[in-house]
Amino acid sequence: MQERIERLKKRMKDGGIDAAFIMHPRSLYYYAGTSQPCNLVVTLKEEPLLYVRRAWDFVKKETPLENLKKGGSLGDISKYLESLGIREGVLGMEEDVLPARLYNKTRDYFPSFQLKNISPLIMDQRLIKDQEERKLVEKASSLFSHIHEVIMNNLKPGVKEVELAGLLWSKIRQEGHEGFTAHRRWDGFLPGDGIVASGENLWQISGYAMTVTGTGKSKYIPWGSSDRVIQEGELVVVDVATNYQGYHGDTARTYVAGKASEKQREVYASLSRVMEEILSHIREGVNVKDLYQLAEKAAEREGYQDYFQGYASQKGEYIGHGLGLEVDEPPVLGPQTDLELKEGMILALEPKFIIPDWGAVDVEETLCVTREGCQVYGTVERKLYEVY
Amino acid sequence: MQERIERLKKRMKDGGIDAAFIMHPRSLYYYAGTSQPCNLVVTLKEEPLLYVRRAWDFVKKETPLENLKKGGSLGDISKYLESLGIREGVLGMEEDVLPARLYNKTRDYFPSFQLKNISPLIMDQRLIKDQEERKLVEKASSLFSHIHEVIMNNLKPGVKEVELAGLLWSKIRQEGHEGFTAHRRWDGFLPGDGIVASGENLWQISGYAMTVTGTGKSKYIPWGSSDRVIQEGELVVVDVATNYQGYHGDTARTYVAGKASEKQREVYASLSRVMEEILSHIREGVNVKDLYQLAEKAAEREGYQDYFQGYASQKGEYIGHGLGLEVDEPPVLGPQTDLELKEGMILALEPKFIIPDWGAVDVEETLCVTREGCQVYGTVERKLYEVY
Repeated sequence: MQERIERLKKRMKDGGIDAAFIMHPRSLYYYAGTSQPCNLVVTLKEEPLLYVRRAWDFVKKETPLENLKKGGSLGDISKYLESLGIREGVLGMEEDVLPARLYNKTRDYFPSFQLKNISPLIMDQRLIKDQEERKLVEKASSLFSHIHEVIMNNLKPGVKEVELAGLLWSKIRQEGHEGFTAHRRWDGFLPGDGIVASGENLWQISGYAMTVTGTGKSKYIPWGSSDRVIQEGELVVVDVATNYQGYHGDTARTYVAGKASEKQREVYASLSRVMEEILSHIREGVNVKDLYQLAEKAAEREGYQDYFQGYASQKGEYIGHGLGLEVDEPPVLGPQTDLELKEGMILALEPKFIIPDWGAVDVEETLCVTREGCQVYGTVERKLYEVY
Repeated sequence: MQERIERLKKRMKDGGIDAAFIMHPRSLYYYAGTSQPCNLVVTLKEEPLLYVRRAWDFVKKETPLENLKKGGSLGDISKYLESLGIREGVLGMEEDVLPARLYNKTRDYFPSFQLKNISPLIMDQRLIKDQEERKLVEKASSLFSHIHEVIMNNLKPGVKEVELAGLLWSKIRQEGHEGFTAHRRWDGFLPGDGIVASGENLWQISGYAMTVTGTGKSKYIPWGSSDRVIQEGELVVVDVATNYQGYHGDTARTYVAGKASEKQREVYASLSRVMEEILSHIREGVNVKDLYQLAEKAAEREGYQDYFQGYASQKGEYIGHGLGLEVDEPPVLGPQTDLELKEGMILALEPKFIIPDWGAVDVEETLCVTREGCQVYGTVERKLYEVY
């Protein structure tokens, strides 16, 4: 963690930021090893100071940082900066996740400072995961094997989507899921038990992402499982983010409630070839936009370009995303992302065909980019599962 | 919903706000009946315009508003205001929940406007719930009866806190829980399946609130259930927020894993008298701070003032909170809140004794203030449950 802070300080120096206030729970966990209510003050001059707003005994046990103090009001921070002789300059704040009111209060409290968004530096640092982080993502991803077991044991005609969602939650909670999925985007909210979608819910794309979203239980929640009763022979997509000690895995598989039809098998086989082709090209040095083009071409070759990642106006130009402490971290794996993959990047790759008035097939794996290729963390075989 | 917007417009007029941009999912649900990605533009001049950023077909079905348009970028909104002749004035934005970056972008896009926090007006309007909202809170609260059933059937020595949490989730999902708990505060994050706490976890107060918090599964998540194995004769507090079509109930009960000891019964009986005394005083016209004083006095009379709402530095000066679309709405039921209760306010009342090195007893009810008293929505008898 000390090392992470040193690297942040280097970035701050290069980016012309004199001091940073780290207040977001995910950032505190990353730099200070605790999610308790704290404010971390990082300056170029001194060791960082962790202000503890509550739960002192917990923080003391949890953080490897040594410079702790009770408090953390803007007044406290201001006095501390003054004691270091820092009276003006550039203050870094996480402008994409901090609420405007807190930001405005801080700006008014520090009129001789210029505020700057420090999130791009932080998210860039977080792009490459260290060994410990990779282990946690691997563990999170492995939780999907329990979800798979629940689906294999409980999917049958007559069961509701939401029943399966409830059962899978119960199982992964027991196996290590933290009980929470963290989003970077401020307005992203998802049922904790992810997406279980069947029948016509497979091609009704709702809410904040172009994917197999499901429709949720009511109009209150745009996506997730619903009360829909699954019918014999229907496709069922199960796409769930799992969280182990703060790090996420994101995995999806497609099931059939009974025996698969010829067409279902064919479509899935096409998707499978697309997936394997993308996977075979992932390695350090590959540019994200090239990977996306390659995926599009593979879908075209299979004849499913019109249904690849959605259809008509409901098409998302992306085949996956970064993840880690949040389930929606950069990079977006899309045609606009001009970025070379590097060893240690964690990606969720999720090609799918969504065919209106028919259904959808979806497969998602969480993986780590390596020099020679990638390590897929999922442990559940990639295939179309017939459950009967 | 039209009526809600009319009342907002009146407040805007009184508050000197010429136009408001409503972007937060909960506010959109309140004023437009949808949680899909939209921006609602409310002006004093015209019918509100709902910009639909995605999922047009869903929004069309969901909202009773008639003035819909695809789009919603700041450019779109700016052109729209200009078309109404609104070129300067005061813009209302929800500064406590919108991220600073979006706020700054908006401020820069509308340099001839002054920005003002509109959340206090909105939250004040939301204080009084209408009949439809009350029904939804009542339904959400009634979901606790299923949680209670799960605890009665599964609590036994040897079971882990988190196993009970997983099982209760599975049940309430099936019975109507939306799968999501909404917080107002930007940094509040809680496992979806609430708090199941036992043994020493009852007096270790962690995270963002002074209550029986539990400790969570890892240091990643400050509160909630843990892997702790419940022992014979221990107290277990179960405190879970449920969500029905967007509205929350918040309920807690205390259980014993086996037969209760004399002391456990005595302490619970004291808490029970405090709870009933507070309940008997709730009615329209009572001031919140007086209610708090009365609760403190009742705890003192029972001899538990040192453990009422925590202990030593871990004491929270509050006995409950408002709730509705969010589980932590105003008012805070504490000594600082100089506010008269009104018919239609929904409150969660949660007195507790937290006794270090011994345990805790907790009871929470969600209720609606009426002219003559209050209507408690919970359907599970308030008592100490011995489970064996």
